[in-house]
Amino acid sequence: MASQDTKNNRSPMQDETPHSALSREHSCIVSNHTLLDHGRPQRTGCPEVIFCEGKTPAQVASIFQEMINTHGECLGTRASKEHYDAVQKAVPNVRFNTDARTLIFDDSNKKKIGCVLVINAGTSDHCVAEEAAQTAEFLGSNVLRHFDCGVAGVHRALHAAKDFTKASAIVAVAGMDGALPTVVAGLSPAPVIAVPTSVGYGTGLGGVAALMTMLNGCAPGVSVVNIDNGFGAGYQAHIINAMAHHNR
Amino acid sequence: MASQDTKNNRSPMQDETPHSALSREHSCIVSNHTLLDHGRPQRTGCPEVIFCEGKTPAQVASIFQEMINTHGECLGTRASKEHYDAVQKAVPNVRFNTDARTLIFDDSNKKKIGCVLVINAGTSDHCVAEEAAQTAEFLGSNVLRHFDCGVAGVHRALHAAKDFTKASAIVAVAGMDGALPTVVAGLSPAPVIAVPTSVGYGTGLGGVAALMTMLNGCAPGVSVVNIDNGFGAGYQAHIINAMAHHNR
Amino acid sequence: MASQDTKNNRSPMQDETPHSALSREHSCIVSNHTLLDHGRPQRTGCPEVIFCEGKTPAQVASIFQEMINTHGECLGTRASKEHYDAVQKAVPNVRFNTDARTLIFDDSNKKKIGCVLVINAGTSDHCVAEEAAQTAEFLGSNVLRHFDCGVAGVHRALHAAKDFTKASAIVAVAGMDGALPTVVAGLSPAPVIAVPTSVGYGTGLGGVAALMTMLNGCAPGVSVVNIDNGFGAGYQAHIINAMAHHNR
Amino acid sequence: MASQDTKNNRSPMQDETPHSALSREHSCIVSNHTLLDHGRPQRTGCPEVIFCEGKTPAQVASIFQEMINTHGECLGTRASKEHYDAVQKAVPNVRFNTDARTLIFDDSNKKKIGCVLVINAGTSDHCVAEEAAQTAEFLGSNVLRHFDCGVAGVHRALHAAKDFTKASAIVAVAGMDGALPTVVAGLSPAPVIAVPTSVGYGTGLGGVAALMTMLNGCAPGVSVVNIDNGFGAGYQAHIINAMAHHNR
Amino acid sequence: MASQDTKNNRSPMQDETPHSALSREHSCIVSNHTLLDHGRPQRTGCPEVIFCEGKTPAQVASIFQEMINTHGECLGTRASKEHYDAVQKAVPNVRFNTDARTLIFDDSNKKKIGCVLVINAGTSDHCVAEEAAQTAEFLGSNVLRHFDCGVAGVHRALHAAKDFTKASAIVAVAGMDGALPTVVAGLSPAPVIAVPTSVGYGTGLGGVAALMTMLNGCAPGVSVVNIDNGFGAGYQAHIINAMAHHNR
Amino acid sequence: MASQDTKNNRSPMQDETPHSALSREHSCIVSNHTLLDHGRPQRTGCPEVIFCEGKTPAQVASIFQEMINTHGECLGTRASKEHYDAVQKAVPNVRFNTDARTLIFDDSNKKKIGCVLVINAGTSDHCVAEEAAQTAEFLGSNVLRHFDCGVAGVHRALHAAKDFTKASAIVAVAGMDGALPTVVAGLSPAPVIAVPTSVGYGTGLGGVAALMTMLNGCAPGVSVVNIDNGFGAGYQAHIINAMAHHNR
Amino acid sequence: MASQDTKNNRSPMQDETPHSALSREHSCIVSNHTLLDHGRPQRTGCPEVIFCEGKTPAQVASIFQEMINTHGECLGTRASKEHYDAVQKAVPNVRFNTDARTLIFDDSNKKKIGCVLVINAGTSDHCVAEEAAQTAEFLGSNVLRHFDCGVAGVHRALHAAKDFTKASAIVAVAGMDGALPTVVAGLSPAPVIAVPTSVGYGTGLGGVAALMTMLNGCAPGVSVVNIDNGFGAGYQAHIINAMAHHNR
Amino acid sequence: MASQDTKNNRSPMQDETPHSALSREHSCIVSNHTLLDHGRPQRTGCPEVIFCEGKTPAQVASIFQEMINTHGECLGTRASKEHYDAVQKAVPNVRFNTDARTLIFDDSNKKKIGCVLVINAGTSDHCVAEEAAQTAEFLGSNVLRHFDCGVAGVHRALHAAKDFTKASAIVAVAGMDGALPTVVAGLSPAPVIAVPTSVGYGTGLGGVAALMTMLNGCAPGVSVVNIDNGFGAGYQAHIINAMAHHNR
Repeated sequence: MASQDTKNNRSPMQDETPHSALSREHSCIVSNHTLLDHGRPQRTGCPEVIFCEGKTPAQVASIFQEMINTHGECLGTRASKEHYDAVQKAVPNVRFNTDARTLIFDDSNKKKIGCVLVINAGTSDHCVAEEAAQTAEFLGSNVLRHFDCGVAGVHRALHAAKDFTKASAIVAVAGMDGALPTVVAGLSPAPVIAVPTSVGYGTGLGGVAALMTMLNGCAPGVSVVNIDNGFGAGYQAHIINAMAHHNR
Repeated sequence: MASQDTKNNRSPMQDETPHSALSREHSCIVSNHTLLDHGRPQRTGCPEVIFCEGKTPAQVASIFQEMINTHGECLGTRASKEHYDAVQKAVPNVRFNTDARTLIFDDSNKKKIGCVLVINAGTSDHCVAEEAAQTAEFLGSNVLRHFDCGVAGVHRALHAAKDFTKASAIVAVAGMDGALPTVVAGLSPAPVIAVPTSVGYGTGLGGVAALMTMLNGCAPGVSVVNIDNGFGAGYQAHIINAMAHHNR
Repeated sequence: MASQDTKNNRSPMQDETPHSALSREHSCIVSNHTLLDHGRPQRTGCPEVIFCEGKTPAQVASIFQEMINTHGECLGTRASKEHYDAVQKAVPNVRFNTDARTLIFDDSNKKKIGCVLVINAGTSDHCVAEEAAQTAEFLGSNVLRHFDCGVAGVHRALHAAKDFTKASAIVAVAGMDGALPTVVAGLSPAPVIAVPTSVGYGTGLGGVAALMTMLNGCAPGVSVVNIDNGFGAGYQAHIINAMAHHNR
Repeated sequence: MASQDTKNNRSPMQDETPHSALSREHSCIVSNHTLLDHGRPQRTGCPEVIFCEGKTPAQVASIFQEMINTHGECLGTRASKEHYDAVQKAVPNVRFNTDARTLIFDDSNKKKIGCVLVINAGTSDHCVAEEAAQTAEFLGSNVLRHFDCGVAGVHRALHAAKDFTKASAIVAVAGMDGALPTVVAGLSPAPVIAVPTSVGYGTGLGGVAALMTMLNGCAPGVSVVNIDNGFGAGYQAHIINAMAHHNR
Repeated sequence: MASQDTKNNRSPMQDETPHSALSREHSCIVSNHTLLDHGRPQRTGCPEVIFCEGKTPAQVASIFQEMINTHGECLGTRASKEHYDAVQKAVPNVRFNTDARTLIFDDSNKKKIGCVLVINAGTSDHCVAEEAAQTAEFLGSNVLRHFDCGVAGVHRALHAAKDFTKASAIVAVAGMDGALPTVVAGLSPAPVIAVPTSVGYGTGLGGVAALMTMLNGCAPGVSVVNIDNGFGAGYQAHIINAMAHHNR
Repeated sequence: MASQDTKNNRSPMQDETPHSALSREHSCIVSNHTLLDHGRPQRTGCPEVIFCEGKTPAQVASIFQEMINTHGECLGTRASKEHYDAVQKAVPNVRFNTDARTLIFDDSNKKKIGCVLVINAGTSDHCVAEEAAQTAEFLGSNVLRHFDCGVAGVHRALHAAKDFTKASAIVAVAGMDGALPTVVAGLSPAPVIAVPTSVGYGTGLGGVAALMTMLNGCAPGVSVVNIDNGFGAGYQAHIINAMAHHNR
Repeated sequence: MASQDTKNNRSPMQDETPHSALSREHSCIVSNHTLLDHGRPQRTGCPEVIFCEGKTPAQVASIFQEMINTHGECLGTRASKEHYDAVQKAVPNVRFNTDARTLIFDDSNKKKIGCVLVINAGTSDHCVAEEAAQTAEFLGSNVLRHFDCGVAGVHRALHAAKDFTKASAIVAVAGMDGALPTVVAGLSPAPVIAVPTSVGYGTGLGGVAALMTMLNGCAPGVSVVNIDNGFGAGYQAHIINAMAHHNR
Repeated sequence: MASQDTKNNRSPMQDETPHSALSREHSCIVSNHTLLDHGRPQRTGCPEVIFCEGKTPAQVASIFQEMINTHGECLGTRASKEHYDAVQKAVPNVRFNTDARTLIFDDSNKKKIGCVLVINAGTSDHCVAEEAAQTAEFLGSNVLRHFDCGVAGVHRALHAAKDFTKASAIVAVAGMDGALPTVVAGLSPAPVIAVPTSVGYGTGLGGVAALMTMLNGCAPGVSVVNIDNGFGAGYQAHIINAMAHHNR
């Protein structure tokens, strides 16, 4: 494919493609307020993921069952112990990670591909980093973890750098000063997905300081997701990794 | 490589790798204030890029020559006509794109790989989108452009969607409401790099509104760069594309 | 009536009209701190509505009785179960909607007019959307609901678009990226009242991100109310609908 | 039409309506960066409007001609004298309002309908208010103006109130404290579209103070557009007025 | 020099050097962390007032006794029921106002002077307004109250205006849109002290919207105190009133 | 007058007072956009003041003449040399203060009363402080100036303190840290009107830092006006001074 | 050592020093998420300090033991009673300061040096000031305390000034208006480390107002740490004091 | 009392009352608005420094002469070429540094002491860093410079680390992500004074992002000055260095 600009030859009258892309949708009404989007895997390569916070345990359990019936696997994020208890009654083999707050039912025979590296700055960033790691693993990536590598003791990030070339994508998680992703991107050929965390106090402003640091980092090769959004970073890192291993 | 956690078997005493990674550096002093980082390609796969804004034409010209002598190519961003005039005296074949404000001297025989798709929302986002496109092309990606596809007339984004599966990475540029990347990510398997632009007025707050929209988008598969940072998005999209085509 | 500018012939000495408009007021002291404004229906076409949050159950109950005695109907918003219990003792037929948090006593024989369409983006926006719907119904509008239509799966908004021409006014409710109203306004001839919700986390900043998206939307035909203000949007949509059906 | 909830009987497989709505589009490429949306009048009842700021005089002139050829009328906003000069060469009868910064070519025989009332708080809000008035008139509404009615001398708003019942929609424009729309809405049965202006200094923060006042107003029946967005308010007021006079 | 705490051996009585105004000071150490400023009445005309929030009931009680011993009267603000219980044991005649959260022990024979008028916008502003009223009364002013006079029904403020000429200073309290003080100042010869309250939600931002409205009001004769600072407004209004009645 | 609450005996039907207060108004249309409020002196004790910024020299000149014809005096603020030149042609004796940017035509025989003290922190605050001083003098107060008294050399404020008891009201002007008003209020019986200035850089945020300091000051007896609003402070100080000298 | 610029003669190939500085590191894995940095004292002169908030009592206890085994002393900050109970079981002589929330085990024979002066503005700042004092004492400095010296009664800061020349570094702690450090720095030859506290309400914004005051202070010789960061200020003051007494 | 300006007849020499520390003050009125504080060296160890921005060249020149007459040396910051030209006429040997924008007249025989190290992140931070260096040198410190050491190529900071032990204080200057001071403090025993710069764009918000990074840094031993305040950092570093070398 050439880098030519397609603007000149687009014919707005023939826009059949997007509609066929959408007509592949098979939506399904689960509860009173929720409409599952079963066409997502065909459009985007990944099934819908359940954001549990704000849903009742019963709602989460019924969505889980519907998802597993259709796709054979399901990931729930921001889950509580109560969500876990309700789901487990219907899906006994579901696993709950109390740090990452993930609920996972997956196919253990699915072969994992490539490598996503997850690195964080400090103990307090652990839960967000683990959410990223769990997400990437659920979606099908191998995950390599380097935790507690903040730049206040920069030798720790340097130590981890020996693994940077192994990864197709790196998730870098940091709160407070948020400086880790810049240092990592300066040492790595892989794209870095930065996650600010709400760790800290005072002018940390619930993660806004770290977010701003990351958006203003001097090293190219960094893009950023929302504060505490470990799921979003793990998802983005996985689809990059999948691109690199021809497995969408 | 397995997804095992490396924490338990890391031995902090043997951290020889990062230092050797750094000892590959060959820095070079160009002007009074600038130290070029010629080791970057070995560490990260891409040469250093010159941010021209705030540098004098003479400084930019001397850095350009030094870069071309070492690497055979050079990209300058945020360049003015004055920068162009100074560089052209030393490097006659340099090209200046007035929309993207890029200065480019590259090797025309370099084979381009894969596909980066650049989509923007409106006329006013054109310059930032073109900076992204120029950057990705310079670094070695084929680029496919879809411009003026804002969601106020959503059929335009749907029309472009027929090309989304061709791309390894998508750059989505939007100001004002910044809603385009969410719509694109819901229709595409490729990772989306979102760029907010400072287009707009009033509560647009110079792009902060669009930035916040993008960070809070409901579709996974989006990560964000700084306001107006077309270069950063084109760079990130290229290294993802390069990952997908084994060409780092 | 012509579009002539009235500035030249206004005579400030004869401003009898506003005072007669105000002298129609019949205020009524209910509790120690509250003065009911029984003249509102004559001035604005709608009776006063009770904002329950921050008032004691006993205060709400006594205001409800006073309102029903005078107007034969009453709407309370942001009500709790405790408010409901207190009101129900005095007004047995009052209805409580736990999602919308509305307390309603109305005249079931009142004929409803026209059509207000309420659309929301996701499950978490349901309560605010339902408050808008309950408000418009109480005031006398027919209401058509389309829920869970966020732009991350843009086919859902397109599906709802077939009903847009039926409505005199549309309430569009969305949190997180807040992109729904722009897409709706691009597909509809009716005015859109946008409601940002405080759903989300991190840089969502309690709804400010969605609010800014909506204020900066590229499609004309959108105006915005305060974060989570479903009542205000339902009220505004109703008076537009009433304008369109000559029933003020 | 009944107020029944359509959720239970929607069949996502039959979403033929939105696509036919979109297939009515007839887009047209004018310049290198712009794609006109000639299907807008069919979808939304109003033709596209040209935001001139940031476009060259030549671009604006060519868009104007294309619009007039297709629709017989055209409105440009945020126009400068240079825009006017370029358009006038091609369209001699175009009118330029230096206060409102509007460029208008319309059909003088079009009958105007109903009434939009435009009220502002002070001299400095005049230009934004006039942009709203010009927009509503161009789109086909009669407009009644009440200027310099700020609440620091509240008798001025009371005086204007005698005309409030004549209007189907009111545009209330105010900078600094932004208190006018609340007072107007408390005295009027028509919906109020509030426009904050960037007039003021210090903590006015370029209109953010007035915007916040308006979003937090105590009177229902107010919705808000972006700072200085006179066009958006005039457009919204017109489509409400058109709804009320069966003329879409 | 040792690291010993110098608090115990500092002798506040010997600070003769500073200034004649300051040498009138007689400070008194009450608890471990607090140093009472008994010289305040001589410098500023009013005794120190106790901000109870954040102090233990026992601390407040001991400060109260010390203050009464020296001055014969004492005012505590932001007091809780627990503070009241502790103080009442030592000072049986202390009065607790649950709305204003004030603790007052005063000399009932003190003659009150002049007139401070306190006006508020809505029911929810009552507590802050009452704190202002209690403060001004304690310090020695007559107080005239007009409550629930928000500008959404502007006739209520107009009604109160008949009393504006009776006052030497007006305290105007409002949350949400904060528009009341501007309207009051436009109708009154007395200086207006405006108090924004944290009432409201969404973009009210805990009172910042009302504060900004008040700072940007178009009518001169308004100055503003911190959000919810009823005490500060009542104090300021009293010293203005005292200025006007030669009774400092 | 007693401190009794008027709520219980107010009869909303008899609200004749405010209307008579308003019917005393005699407005006058000067230019196309401006309506003078000649009833202000009767309502508030002070004539309208002209905010020149944003008005043309011709507009200012015509307003000046109209004001002088009616009231015999006039004050313009934020005036430029161009405003002065235009006014001087019509009103030869008008005076222009280039620091305060005031245009003044007054009656030199008017007797000045009492004392307003104006104190500022540093050289850069001079213009705002002088605007306050000119305003208070024009309105009829004697003014005592203490300039360059910032708390970084706290002996300067202590030196000025010897005059604090002479004043009925103090205007304290400060930028940067904005700490001066707190120190002044702790040493003075008179009410302090604090004016933050936009002097400074970086986190000064155009005066917001100083504003926040002043709103959070620990000493009671301070109220605040908008950033750089010397006029507002001088006006407020004058009406307090006038209250204290029975001369409204 | 001369003040010559080292830029011209730095040879990037010989950067052996930093690596040897880092190779002195001896890290130690304590818990699952934490990696102690035992090389810190050699690099920076001070051992690592434990931030207890967010760690379980068991985690804190095991880290304490590991630290004491290696260094013979340990400081924990932001500790709760639960942390204390857990540590005390393993380290009976640990001391808990409930105001400062510090856990300290130190060598009582260590000789303290020089002088750090800690001054605060009000009762509510006590805990943060005491954290600074405890930190500086633990690290080896003599500490002189002056508490409750806010500038609202400026004679208190003047009184403390007699000790300013005794100190090598001053920690100045203030909330609300944050004006104390400026006044102190204007009276002292020692560097001032300013600590804003989150004391206050309304526009205090959790300490941001005080922070901004301190960053914009007019007196040089002030630098600032994060809101409520007493530990950081005590640490910084100690290392300055240590510099002055040749005891690193 | 008349409204005359008291500036001319205040006698700064008679302010003996305040304090013994303050009575050593000898102020001097230079221009109309400025009062020099010749007592500063005795109180704080350093003479007053002239902030030139906002002063006329003539004002700066007269202050310079007065300062040199009294102290034999003078430093001006934020000076322009126009300031330099005016000063040079009166003080021919004054030196102007165009990068740092400093005007310096000093005693070349003064012996410099100790070592202040100034490090910056990138080319664009050069001017602020040089202002810090010039300030520290003027005040009497030896200065060691390490420029262009941003953490995007972390080996550059590691290289500079070999000099960290030579310094008594380190000034670390960085814009954009502001991460440099944290890395430096983790490698150094000396206190770090961090200076955020306004370099960058978009969410850099004129240096606020870098400021927040620095306030939230994870390494102790960092305190921060205002954005672009190179002077403040150089001053603070010098007085720390002077403390360490007994030369105040």
